[in-house]
Amino acid sequence: MSVEQPVAASSVRRQAELGKAASRQVALLSTEQKNAALRAMAGALRREAETILAANAEDLHRARAAGTPAHLLDRLALDPKRLEEMARGVEAVAALPDPVGEVIDRDVRPNGLEVERVRVPIGLIVVIYEARPNVTSDVAALCLKSGNACLLRGGSEAYASSQAIVQALRRAVAPYVDPNAIQLVESTDRRDVLALLTMNGLVDLVIPRGGADLIATVVRTATVPTIETGVGNCHVYVEATADEAMAVDIVVNAKCSRPSVCNAAETLLIDRAIAPRLLPRIGEALRQRNVELRVDEEARRILGYGTPAREEDWATEFLDLILAVRVVDGLDEALAHIARYGTGHSEAIVTRDPAAARRFQQEVDAAAVYVNASTRFSDGFELGLGAEIGISTQKMHARGPMGLRELCSYKWLVRGTGQVR
Amino acid sequence: MSVEQPVAASSVRRQAELGKAASRQVALLSTEQKNAALRAMAGALRREAETILAANAEDLHRARAAGTPAHLLDRLALDPKRLEEMARGVEAVAALPDPVGEVIDRDVRPNGLEVERVRVPIGLIVVIYEARPNVTSDVAALCLKSGNACLLRGGSEAYASSQAIVQALRRAVAPYVDPNAIQLVESTDRRDVLALLTMNGLVDLVIPRGGADLIATVVRTATVPTIETGVGNCHVYVEATADEAMAVDIVVNAKCSRPSVCNAAETLLIDRAIAPRLLPRIGEALRQRNVELRVDEEARRILGYGTPAREEDWATEFLDLILAVRVVDGLDEALAHIARYGTGHSEAIVTRDPAAARRFQQEVDAAAVYVNASTRFSDGFELGLGAEIGISTQKMHARGPMGLRELCSYKWLVRGTGQVR
Repeated sequence: MSVEQPVAASSVRRQAELGKAASRQVALLSTEQKNAALRAMAGALRREAETILAANAEDLHRARAAGTPAHLLDRLALDPKRLEEMARGVEAVAALPDPVGEVIDRDVRPNGLEVERVRVPIGLIVVIYEARPNVTSDVAALCLKSGNACLLRGGSEAYASSQAIVQALRRAVAPYVDPNAIQLVESTDRRDVLALLTMNGLVDLVIPRGGADLIATVVRTATVPTIETGVGNCHVYVEATADEAMAVDIVVNAKCSRPSVCNAAETLLIDRAIAPRLLPRIGEALRQRNVELRVDEEARRILGYGTPAREEDWATEFLDLILAVRVVDGLDEALAHIARYGTGHSEAIVTRDPAAARRFQQEVDAAAVYVNASTRFSDGFELGLGAEIGISTQKMHARGPMGLRELCSYKWLVRGTGQVR
Repeated sequence: MSVEQPVAASSVRRQAELGKAASRQVALLSTEQKNAALRAMAGALRREAETILAANAEDLHRARAAGTPAHLLDRLALDPKRLEEMARGVEAVAALPDPVGEVIDRDVRPNGLEVERVRVPIGLIVVIYEARPNVTSDVAALCLKSGNACLLRGGSEAYASSQAIVQALRRAVAPYVDPNAIQLVESTDRRDVLALLTMNGLVDLVIPRGGADLIATVVRTATVPTIETGVGNCHVYVEATADEAMAVDIVVNAKCSRPSVCNAAETLLIDRAIAPRLLPRIGEALRQRNVELRVDEEARRILGYGTPAREEDWATEFLDLILAVRVVDGLDEALAHIARYGTGHSEAIVTRDPAAARRFQQEVDAAAVYVNASTRFSDGFELGLGAEIGISTQKMHARGPMGLRELCSYKWLVRGTGQVR
């Protein structure tokens, strides 16, 4: 970090203060009020489509001029169809159950005290994310529905788009709640974002959604609570008794269906007992999909091709059509490999042996552990949360896909008739 | 912090490595194995009583020589009765339900995937606490039962006692699990403890149990997850419709039953409408118990005595027979005072007005919010957890009293029949 002073630290602090004050209002909104605000947000995205698309065209123009590669331009680009999807996403959040006020448990103590734990919002949540402008409306909707205020920091390439989106959303919620419940950080200076990470008492939570570097910086710098999301060095382990066709399907799906996401597989571990027969079949299926293999010696002997894997390949989240391949001597070696290189995201075993399945699920220390299914299911929608703000790879508070409940805390409500201790 | 290098940082790191390795074993123990180990721990505290008491006598001798005040010597002192209580405390943990493996929820997705969230241990937990040696066995028992390894750092005044206790506990658990599941930091150098706070990947959680300074240092320094515990600037708000006898009882109990603990009340807020009649009665009851009052102008006018409160008195956790007293103009002013000065621990209202009770419970942002009961009930035993490792004043992960479940994380276990996405 540079030693210069953040130019606009005071204005970022002011935004945090406004957000914190707004969070007290959002927390008290009824479900009906929040849903009405969400429907108004969806309406505003449609009504202000022209303005938003014009802002997005500016961002695209600047990005093209800066020589941004085509796949990143695609992430950045909005069109009427994508904007309509964003509006529908916000409406989908309105349709989800309200987590706030849910009674988690209830008890009457021997002395007559009535004790409840009730779900409550967290407060002001800072979310830091990368270029996709659609994340802006997603995150705003999830925070509002869970009774939180949000202060958003999208990718600087998408600043004009995010600004237009946030302005539309703020106008939409104004009849229901202080519009500072939804704010965009009014600065693209990285130091201003870093300043937010130590605003204890104002910022209740920071969620970094992005690459390993962003997350590491946040964890290192923050004194406010954070939730680490998303770095997934995921493995598929094909055990000796695996159904072979199933193994091929799962490996191909876990690697190829969307290689750029965190729940895609990065390493295949295959048992020595089954590798000579099955690995060529898997290799052929992957070759048809242009997957580059980084293989250990034994895999290379079996396949007759493949780039020799280097040590760092086992630890790399390729996020690309590249798969590391290692032949292992049974479950223990697979478990040891995953314990050493895994990032605690999603791990899968393909097996017909119930004992191996059980041990794998018990001993692998990861957010999601799969038997006979693709790691690609690590997703809030797929696992039944109805929405997702990110996938936590930490163990505290929330682990794996996080939905509306995971954006909440709880409090103990105790009712008595004069009890003392 | 001094600029010198920690003398024994490498040995503390080694302890963390050993603890992390042991945590993998503890996590896989059955309930029966853990309970047998806990009973052995209780047995060892009884069997090795002589050694432990001799070590405690050393600590006391050193503390006396250093001029330690009597009430701190009392916290430090063990005797056969206290040691028996420690043993029974460990047995009580054995009798509690095992949180590990509990199914939090279960779902079958439309594609046939079976999805469960299952409670799992956190891993290696560092607990930093102050002089009481009994905490050593309490914390070790709670961590073991919840499937975690612990690395303990007690007060340096109690080092010999804690060492004797931990040695007894380690010998007791050795037949069941790697004894490094229970370790005492083998250094009384503060810098070694600080080094633990940044051992990401080895230390899964740090719980500081102690004063505001310790907690602030931990939060500022740590890059590993932490749980803030215990600072309680708690309020009792006597609303205009309060039952007067109940108000006297609750204020006296919240202040006087154990003034040194975090759930004791530090400030009384009383409504202007009821203060002229009720405050003298409360004042008299407190005077009989030698409570010093720090009063605002209006309270002083009504009482005719009391030390004028200074601004910092509203923000102080006295932990002593001192109570700040302020006359407020109704619920809004009480809520604003608590929002400004509260630490998010425990807050109480005494009222006969259900609407006031509801608003107070909804709007006060604290771990525990009481209606017509003493703040002193903020305790894991009193609120039904069966045990307690501390009281969290943060919103993430756990809030308020933390028992065995709060020493756990969870993972998603997904079973399929070849599903791909």
